Amino acid sequence: MNQEHVTQLNDAIRAVKSTDLKNFYFVACGGSMANLYPAHYIFDREIETPSAIYSSNEFVHREPKALGKGSVVILCSHSGNTPETAKAAEFARKKGAVTIAFSNVVDSPLWKAAEFPIHYDYGVEATAKEGNSGMLYRLIFGILNEIAANEKYEKAIGSIDNLQKLYDVNKEMTFDAADEFGKKYKREKLIYTMASGPNYGVAYSFTSCLLMEMLWINSNAIHAGEYFHGPFEVTDFDVPFLLIKGLGETRPLDERAHDFVKKFSEKLTVVDAKDFNMDGIDEDLKSYFTPLIAGVVLRQYADRLAEHTGHPLSVRRYMWKMEY
Amino acid sequence: MNQEHVTQLNDAIRAVKSTDLKNFYFVACGGSMANLYPAHYIFDREIETPSAIYSSNEFVHREPKALGKGSVVILCSHSGNTPETAKAAEFARKKGAVTIAFSNVVDSPLWKAAEFPIHYDYGVEATAKEGNSGMLYRLIFGILNEIAANEKYEKAIGSIDNLQKLYDVNKEMTFDAADEFGKKYKREKLIYTMASGPNYGVAYSFTSCLLMEMLWINSNAIHAGEYFHGPFEVTDFDVPFLLIKGLGETRPLDERAHDFVKKFSEKLTVVDAKDFNMDGIDEDLKSYFTPLIAGVVLRQYADRLAEHTGHPLSVRRYMWKMEY
Repeated sequence: MNQEHVTQLNDAIRAVKSTDLKNFYFVACGGSMANLYPAHYIFDREIETPSAIYSSNEFVHREPKALGKGSVVILCSHSGNTPETAKAAEFARKKGAVTIAFSNVVDSPLWKAAEFPIHYDYGVEATAKEGNSGMLYRLIFGILNEIAANEKYEKAIGSIDNLQKLYDVNKEMTFDAADEFGKKYKREKLIYTMASGPNYGVAYSFTSCLLMEMLWINSNAIHAGEYFHGPFEVTDFDVPFLLIKGLGETRPLDERAHDFVKKFSEKLTVVDAKDFNMDGIDEDLKSYFTPLIAGVVLRQYADRLAEHTGHPLSVRRYMWKMEY
Repeated sequence: MNQEHVTQLNDAIRAVKSTDLKNFYFVACGGSMANLYPAHYIFDREIETPSAIYSSNEFVHREPKALGKGSVVILCSHSGNTPETAKAAEFARKKGAVTIAFSNVVDSPLWKAAEFPIHYDYGVEATAKEGNSGMLYRLIFGILNEIAANEKYEKAIGSIDNLQKLYDVNKEMTFDAADEFGKKYKREKLIYTMASGPNYGVAYSFTSCLLMEMLWINSNAIHAGEYFHGPFEVTDFDVPFLLIKGLGETRPLDERAHDFVKKFSEKLTVVDAKDFNMDGIDEDLKSYFTPLIAGVVLRQYADRLAEHTGHPLSVRRYMWKMEY
C-alpha cells in the first residue's frame, strides 16, 4: 500500500479512538453521498453509536443539535471542489467535530478544510484496494476494529485486497447482460431503479448520476420496501425497472419487489448479487461488499446504454458550463 | 379535546420520560412515513438525543444495533393494518423499546402491537387539531417540553389549535393556483417534485402517494440540495417541476433550486410557504408548521389534477385488488 494512504488512515482512526465518541455523520453530495451510504448501513448494524447521512447543504443549514465535540464527520468529494462539502467540513470542524475527508485531489478545498484528509486513487492505473470504496472500507472497518475489536473486521480489511480482481471478473461476467440492457432500453425516456439495505445508495447513484445526469433519462430510485406503498401503482407492461437484489438481511425486501414487478412489467432487468463472483469474501461479509461490486457492474450497464444511445456519459448541458 | 386522546398522549409522554432515553426511531411506510418526516427533522434540530427514520420493512430487516431498552419507536399506519408496520412495533417492543403508534383505527393490528397506541381523527367531521399531524405534533412538542422544557414548545402545542383554520384559509387562498396547475399539467406523464429541510417529506408524499400511486404519473422527489449533483441535468423547457419553498434555515436550498429551474423549465410550479397565511403561529415555529400546511395545499393540487385528468384519486390497479 501507498505509505501516505496508510498514514492518513491511521491518523484518522487514531483521532476517532481518542475522541470521546458520541456520533458519526456521513456528509457529501450526489454520487459521493451515495458511496458513503453502505458505510452508514454497516455502522447502523454493527455498533450502537448513532450515525446519520446527509447531503452537505442540508447538513450545514439544518445544523443538527448533536453535532459537536465527540462527533466524527466523514466527508467525500472526488475533486475536493464541491463547495457545499468543503463548507460542511469547515462547519463541522468549527463545532469541534473530528473531520475526515476523502478526495482524489490533494490540497483541494475539501482537503484543506478537513482535519484528516485521506487520498484515494482513481483512473486507469489505480487498483480498487486504494480506490474510493477500498479506502472508505479500510477506514470503516478500521474504526470498527478499533472501537469493537473483532476478527470479522480484520477479515473485512483483508478482503479489500481482492476487490480489483472481483471488479474485473464481475464486469467480464456481466458484459453481455449490460450490452443487452443498453440495446433493449436505448429508446427509453424513463427507467426506474430499485434496491434496499446496503444497496440503496447504488440505486440512488445510478438514478441521479448515471441515468439523470449523464444520460438525461428520467428516473427515481425507489426503495424496494417503499415500492408497495405508492410507487408500485405506476408499474405497467411498458415501464422499465432495474432491480438490484442484495444478499443477507434485507434480501427479502428485494425478493418481494421482484415477485411483483416481474408479473406486471415486461421491461424488468435484475442485477442479482447471488450471481456475483465473490471469491475471497467471507460469507458473513458478502452483504456488505455487495454494493461495491454492484456499483461497478452497473457502471458497465450505463456504459453500454451510452454506447447504444450515442450519448456519451461525459456530456453535460449545465455542469462545467455555468455558475449555479 | 377528546379525553381519550389526552390520556393516550399523556401515557406515551410519561413513558418516554420514565425510560432511560437513548434514541428515537420513526418507523412507517409510504405516506405515513412521510408524515413523520418533519417530526424527525424537529428532533434533529432541537435535541441531542439521536433519532432516525426508516421504512418499516427496512427497519425490521436491518435491525439497527442501537435499538433496545431506552429506545422510543414512534410508528404510524392510518388503517393500522399495514403488516410491515405492525411487525415493526412487535419487533421493537420485544427488543425492549417504548412503542408509540398512531392510527385512525382502534384495535387494529398496529394498535394492538404497540404499547402506547394513540388515536387520531379523520374524515369530514374531524378537526385538524386532533387529526394525524395535530396529534403527532402534540406528542413531539409534548416530549420536547418534558425532556427540555421551553416556552417555545408550549407555544407550539398551543398553535395546534389554529391548524384547522389555517388549513381552511390556505386551501381557499390556493384554490385557483391548484386548479390552474391541474388544467395546465393534465397531459403530463412525468412531474418532478422538489423540497428540502422539514418539507422533504411533503415532496416525497406528493411523489409517491399522489402522483405515482393515485394519478399514475411518473415522478421523483428530488432533494433541493441534491438537485445540483445529478438530477438537474434532466431539466429542460418541457420538464415539469413542482417546487416547495419552505421558511427558515433550509430555505436557501430551495431558493437556489428555484433560481436555476426557472431559467430552464417553462413548466415550473412553486408552492411558497412565504405566501401561506400562518396567523397564530409564532415566528420561530413557522418553519416547523410549514409542512403541515403545504401538505394540505398540495392535496388540493392533486385533487384538481385528478379533476382535470378525469382519473379519480381513489382508483388503483393493484392495491386492494390482490395480495402482494
